[in-house]
Amino acid sequence: MTPVRRRNVGILVFDNVEVLDFAGPFEVFSRTRLVPGVESRRSDDSAPFHVFTVAPGPGQITATGGLRVVPDHDFANAPHVDLLVVPGGFGTRLLLANETVLEWIRQQSVTTEVMTSVCTGSLLLARAGLLANRRATTHWSSLDALAALDASITVERELRVVDDGIVTSAGVSAGIDMALAVVESLHGRQVADETAYYIEYRRTAPSG
Amino acid sequence: MTPVRRRNVGILVFDNVEVLDFAGPFEVFSRTRLVPGVESRRSDDSAPFHVFTVAPGPGQITATGGLRVVPDHDFANAPHVDLLVVPGGFGTRLLLANETVLEWIRQQSVTTEVMTSVCTGSLLLARAGLLANRRATTHWSSLDALAALDASITVERELRVVDDGIVTSAGVSAGIDMALAVVESLHGRQVADETAYYIEYRRTAPSG
Repeated sequence: MTPVRRRNVGILVFDNVEVLDFAGPFEVFSRTRLVPGVESRRSDDSAPFHVFTVAPGPGQITATGGLRVVPDHDFANAPHVDLLVVPGGFGTRLLLANETVLEWIRQQSVTTEVMTSVCTGSLLLARAGLLANRRATTHWSSLDALAALDASITVERELRVVDDGIVTSAGVSAGIDMALAVVESLHGRQVADETAYYIEYRRTAPSG
Repeated sequence: MTPVRRRNVGILVFDNVEVLDFAGPFEVFSRTRLVPGVESRRSDDSAPFHVFTVAPGPGQITATGGLRVVPDHDFANAPHVDLLVVPGGFGTRLLLANETVLEWIRQQSVTTEVMTSVCTGSLLLARAGLLANRRATTHWSSLDALAALDASITVERELRVVDDGIVTSAGVSAGIDMALAVVESLHGRQVADETAYYIEYRRTAPSG
């Protein structure tokens, strides 16, 4: 078997990030294997993604509900990211006014291959100007807020995952569907479905 | 409104615990509110659960895929647990031979109100002797291993959540269904469904 060209998946974490927003995509990308089954999950040999967390600054972060996570990197030392996941949660409210974070996201959009968000993470992408003239979605409670941030966004109110160059998703657990949709676009339906089977997740209908 | 009698939810974490196995129930229990809507999630006022992580010993743990978590407590200083979640993952293999962990789980079964597991966490419950003469389930790849650990267990091969005094669930994302089933049994269908709606998770058919 030819060696896998492994993509770096960077998952942004910050205080008051919603747990499942980042843990769902972390699970999907870190457990995807190009070789099906249980045995292939015991090593990284057929893993097409290398997943790590990135925080704005050094030190541990506290997610919603109090889960404490030690980020692998901060903005100052993060490796190249091929695929960025911007999760949501109440912590996004503070970050909407944090130009350092918004500028980092803007820079990532230039150098990454795939930009994604979960839940209210799309508000950060919108504030960074990245969703202009695109279709996008967010948690049901923030659809109006997304529209208000940038009138050029076509807010999709019924879809769980929206891929319009940047991949956004609805709330919380929809991030699992988003990650599986990205796996499918990069590695095909069979690999995505087999990963869903491994984590015993029932995928939703096709995204828009 | 009368003050909420808040239950302590302890989630066991350990090296090579599967991320979604613990993060799914963490999300559900920590985001459940007795008052529906988004505003109620901004505080703990109507939160019926206080959720924390417990590790066997001090220091951070590294979950499958490399996610690093700082546990809130270890066995030596954990507060009383009303509801225990035992997640799975490859790390359970080592713990199956760890009498300290097995004995702690046994002790918890005496003092908790609700014992639960996700995925191969049920292997730990079985090894601790807690699933004797009960119906139970686990990840599809470990159904035979569960049967082999204790012949008195009736292994349910088709159900996502099994409640026979102790609540076990199928693999990984089935832990979300397990947590919602426990929320329903303690606080009713409406609270469980509203929490699922908040995290945009489509619940499965009734459990067994």
